[in-house]
Amino acid sequence: MAEYLGPTPIATVTRLSIYLRTLEEAQSENIEYISSMKIGQRNGFTSAQVRKDLSCFGNFGQKGKGYYIPSLIKQLRSILGLSQKWNIAIMGLGHLGQAFVGYKGFQKSGFNIVAIFDTDENKIGTKYNGIPVHHPDDLKRIAKNKDIQIAVITVPSSVAKASIQRVIDAKIKGILNFTDVRISLDNEFVMKNVNLVGELETIAFYITRPDWQCRGI
Amino acid sequence: MAEYLGPTPIATVTRLSIYLRTLEEAQSENIEYISSMKIGQRNGFTSAQVRKDLSCFGNFGQKGKGYYIPSLIKQLRSILGLSQKWNIAIMGLGHLGQAFVGYKGFQKSGFNIVAIFDTDENKIGTKYNGIPVHHPDDLKRIAKNKDIQIAVITVPSSVAKASIQRVIDAKIKGILNFTDVRISLDNEFVMKNVNLVGELETIAFYITRPDWQCRGI
Repeated sequence: MAEYLGPTPIATVTRLSIYLRTLEEAQSENIEYISSMKIGQRNGFTSAQVRKDLSCFGNFGQKGKGYYIPSLIKQLRSILGLSQKWNIAIMGLGHLGQAFVGYKGFQKSGFNIVAIFDTDENKIGTKYNGIPVHHPDDLKRIAKNKDIQIAVITVPSSVAKASIQRVIDAKIKGILNFTDVRISLDNEFVMKNVNLVGELETIAFYITRPDWQCRGI
Repeated sequence: MAEYLGPTPIATVTRLSIYLRTLEEAQSENIEYISSMKIGQRNGFTSAQVRKDLSCFGNFGQKGKGYYIPSLIKQLRSILGLSQKWNIAIMGLGHLGQAFVGYKGFQKSGFNIVAIFDTDENKIGTKYNGIPVHHPDDLKRIAKNKDIQIAVITVPSSVAKASIQRVIDAKIKGILNFTDVRISLDNEFVMKNVNLVGELETIAFYITRPDWQCRGI
């Protein structure tokens, strides 16, 4: 689930999203055209990798000129499914949920947090950053009313399974899971797990073994 | 930087970390031996993928019996560099920093948060969850005193570049970056970027195009 969600490998999709960031950055610097090499350099990929990834989805570049940035941004946004708006629910208004709600970068990319769910009676009925806080029992109804397509799970691990089950029952197709609970879901759901311990372990690995090479198959 | 940090692809290292979680989980269920197929099933990988990844680092399995869990956990922890303790600094005590400090899963894996850095005069000199809060000007001295090897960047984007520069100046080799600022670093540093917008974009992609297949090279 975490590594391979469909016929396009998740590593490719992740890179498309990185390229989009790079193009937006270049555009804010008033650059009009960019080469696959420049896109690669800004992110530590080879130009061949960039060309290969983009060629999966069409023929965007102009020989000798590179990619026309405004048009490639539009294409990448369309490929990633960002031509539409996405309505998001936050499950759990602890520190992580509050960090997520407060993060400025989502709206620009078309992700709107429209509802927060928490079991704390002191929070229910109030607003946080202008977004209403509801009891999780109301998820199904509100998900339908507000057309919520993605839920972000930031509840404590102890209640994560129940929280994910509620999201599934509400037929919310996309789940971003910050807890360490792992669940296998039907193919109609898309779950991405963010593994905080794993991020640190990856760093520990590369500090410990900077030059390790696979000696297996 | 984000995708490829050395001769072992980051996707492999990420999977090793997922396997370790799975083994710890199986151990807590009193299972002694586990097959590559079972490890794969719990995470949506093929058994061939699991065998290939593990074979990179040695020959751990026993034919017909699978992997002896206590020993494979030990091996994986050693491979990932978790035989030692890792001292961690949190840069920025906003909501995300607080969520990170409060997260229970780190200590078990050998990651100890030993210092927090924030510019808020009301926080400096106090403790949060028992961990002292310092001014970032003191990072170099404290990093040396406390042998800090990894810094987690949870400051606002506007000051992220300066914060990362302080970490580099303090010769802290590992950086986990939660901001949307991207920096290229020398090879001696290991930086991992967590891209929250990218996580949502990946989910949006798979909801929009569940069956997309690359038609390029």
